Amino acid sequence: MNIEERIHAALERHFREVVSPNTPPSLRAAIEHAILPGGALIRPQLYMAVAVVSGDDAPLLTDAGAVALELMHCASLVHDDMPCFDNAQMRRGKKSVHAAFSEPIALLTGDALIVMAYQVLLSESAKRPLSAEHSNRILKMMSVLSQGVGVPNGIVAGQAWECESKVDLWKYQRSKTGSLFTAAVFMGAIVAGANPEPWRAVGESLGDAYQIADDIRDVIGQVDLIGKPVGQDAEHGRPSAAQALGLEGANLEFKRLIESAANGVPHCEGREILRAMIYKESERLVPQSEYQKFVQLAKARSTAADAVL
Amino acid sequence: MNIEERIHAALERHFREVVSPNTPPSLRAAIEHAILPGGALIRPQLYMAVAVVSGDDAPLLTDAGAVALELMHCASLVHDDMPCFDNAQMRRGKKSVHAAFSEPIALLTGDALIVMAYQVLLSESAKRPLSAEHSNRILKMMSVLSQGVGVPNGIVAGQAWECESKVDLWKYQRSKTGSLFTAAVFMGAIVAGANPEPWRAVGESLGDAYQIADDIRDVIGQVDLIGKPVGQDAEHGRPSAAQALGLEGANLEFKRLIESAANGVPHCEGREILRAMIYKESERLVPQSEYQKFVQLAKARSTAADAVL
Repeated sequence: MNIEERIHAALERHFREVVSPNTPPSLRAAIEHAILPGGALIRPQLYMAVAVVSGDDAPLLTDAGAVALELMHCASLVHDDMPCFDNAQMRRGKKSVHAAFSEPIALLTGDALIVMAYQVLLSESAKRPLSAEHSNRILKMMSVLSQGVGVPNGIVAGQAWECESKVDLWKYQRSKTGSLFTAAVFMGAIVAGANPEPWRAVGESLGDAYQIADDIRDVIGQVDLIGKPVGQDAEHGRPSAAQALGLEGANLEFKRLIESAANGVPHCEGREILRAMIYKESERLVPQSEYQKFVQLAKARSTAADAVL
Repeated sequence: MNIEERIHAALERHFREVVSPNTPPSLRAAIEHAILPGGALIRPQLYMAVAVVSGDDAPLLTDAGAVALELMHCASLVHDDMPCFDNAQMRRGKKSVHAAFSEPIALLTGDALIVMAYQVLLSESAKRPLSAEHSNRILKMMSVLSQGVGVPNGIVAGQAWECESKVDLWKYQRSKTGSLFTAAVFMGAIVAGANPEPWRAVGESLGDAYQIADDIRDVIGQVDLIGKPVGQDAEHGRPSAAQALGLEGANLEFKRLIESAANGVPHCEGREILRAMIYKESERLVPQSEYQKFVQLAKARSTAADAVL
């Protein structure tokens, strides 16, 4: 079973355990709609890769951490898609939760998913007495996850920066996206009993790279490719690196951040595997052939426009 | 410092600790608006009373549990007041969060408060290594709190039952209100290292009593008395005990539940103090003189109407 299959299996197992048939039927269906079959699972995969190269000596806890990360991410997607934010009708190639169910159910689904992330992390301790060491790992993972999601610097805070008239672009992006990437690599080290600090650079660089990739795709993307509407940043007047740096500047910065993440991987047995994974992910995030095609097309159009005018 | 003052102090301390000035200003102001100076603090007071009669041997943990309960309660109020649910403009005698700030900020405030409840419970473990015993108490408290809030039977599930066409009134009310009362008494025992089970009857009876009181007040209440609009249940077509049992039946059931809660208090040193607290609270929930006044007025009106017709 590879990492992706392992995360899928854990996600389904924890869904069945927590969201029992006693749950109100619409809420249960909406939670399932929001989390299964799952998206790209970028954060949990990154987390689990770090956990595996760090030893993965408590695999059930490792599974729980992956699921918790994905649930928090899904919660933020469900709430961000709602009419008072993006009013997005599509997500992951199907209807968003409020479009498929209703606004009240979408609001409650996000709330339930946040709580469920903790329930999943607590599930092992609820089943049997844990060693002090494992209890401490769970407490630390929950602290790191909470920081990645809540105030003052988590994804909820990042989203709130969108509501401010004065925003520092990097602070905004660090919170909105980077915080959960940093939480992912930290949790991966913690769940295996390793020191999280050496992983900070990997998490921060990847988080920044991912946000810039999102901005770049928002400009060059096609709705089919990423399963959600594009051009949202400009439409919603959101701060965007592709606007601040220009498209080519943003792509250069993206590539620099990927190098920085790959070089930041601490020396450990699986170092080369993880570095290869980061490069592969970068190609998925911003396919350079697509990027070049868009740039050439844009230049050709602009030349054609110049010739006509 | 009495219990109420102790909870107030803890609420302000944890607000300052978690919601640092780095938080986006609107979100920070909205969180403060939602939780300070605080409402009746019924759940945290109940919790802390149980903790105190159970020994209260880890007072900082006890404080954290009270704050966590109040934050979860406030999160549910902020989200329930939003336009897609009650669309309530007032709460606790001032503007509701979405009315005072905006819908996006209200949505994020609720999310941040849920996460913050866990941050507060984790705060002691983040400051210094805890004993295995104290770590376990925190893990258990978080499990119980999560059950009280999330799926399948917590307050979020209770709210979701409102979106179903077929609802079991008692299941709905048990989830919507009772679950957090049960969590409160359980957490009070756990934080002091006591067995929570003997407290179950107290939590369940008080939760049911509180929900019925809410339904009764929704019929007889005046907006000044409880700081929010009345008649909401009928307006929103929500299941209500006052409708199902009739007003007098509901009041009888309320009094029966209060007796059951008071009689359920396990034998312990502070038993009489806790029983007295329950009776005092019941009078605050449904002042019997107000109730009688309403019933007499309603009968007089109906007689006058009969005489005219």
